[in-house]
Amino acid sequence: MLSPAHGYSLTPVGVIRSSLRNRSEAPRQASEGAPDAWVEIDSEVVAGLDGITVGQEIVLITWLHMARRDVLKVHPRNCKDLDLAGVFATRSPDRPNPLGLHRVKVLEISGNKLKVGPLEAIDGTPVVDIKPVLPHCANS
Amino acid sequence: MLSPAHGYSLTPVGVIRSSLRNRSEAPRQASEGAPDAWVEIDSEVVAGLDGITVGQEIVLITWLHMARRDVLKVHPRNCKDLDLAGVFATRSPDRPNPLGLHRVKVLEISGNKLKVGPLEAIDGTPVVDIKPVLPHCANS
Repeated sequence: MLSPAHGYSLTPVGVIRSSLRNRSEAPRQASEGAPDAWVEIDSEVVAGLDGITVGQEIVLITWLHMARRDVLKVHPRNCKDLDLAGVFATRSPDRPNPLGLHRVKVLEISGNKLKVGPLEAIDGTPVVDIKPVLPHCANS
Repeated sequence: MLSPAHGYSLTPVGVIRSSLRNRSEAPRQASEGAPDAWVEIDSEVVAGLDGITVGQEIVLITWLHMARRDVLKVHPRNCKDLDLAGVFATRSPDRPNPLGLHRVKVLEISGNKLKVGPLEAIDGTPVVDIKPVLPHCANS
């Protein structure tokens, strides 16, 4: 780990364990029938979880490892009837930096594992950051 | 750019231009008096902005380039009177992967530049992703 940050290289801090095995079976948004899942946190950074509690809402930032990085326009929701839009105007996983943003509720904490849901990310997706939802503002 | 994503290396897609010049003068949250700022998008990825409109709310993901990456516990709000907490339970910029998450409103669009606000990130902060706030859900 570096101090201060230089370069732009991420180190996964954990991984998603989910019943969703591939992109084709994953819902496009968590609100569209996504299951609960486990987040396994790397033992080296587990101290960073202190203070997270069951019932709390958190934001996971993931590395969408199956995404394409050479795409700048997509049909929203992969629907050819919708006009092409810039990837920054969509939640497409395909984008220059394939970061996923997932607001979930903490359902259970067991050692270095957090059960969270609902979560549309597939099994094996690396987690690169976890943040609390801000208490004064329910939106970020 | 790679396809599918491999490695964990980010490529900045833009940079923040702000009157905030360093961490000491930046508010801890956007809601605490942060100014408006400009996001300059790299010409190579400007097509990714198509569909973003003035008045819309977006989420910027930044690379907090002045952060420390070797910190797992912090005093929340840098207040020594508050017990140490894990960085994943806080919004501290100091964390293993120094990603910042900023929900802002688009105030103006001029070529490859977006005026947004309020934004607590300092001048020169790299932007690594932009996402729309989901229309069906005001919180992520």
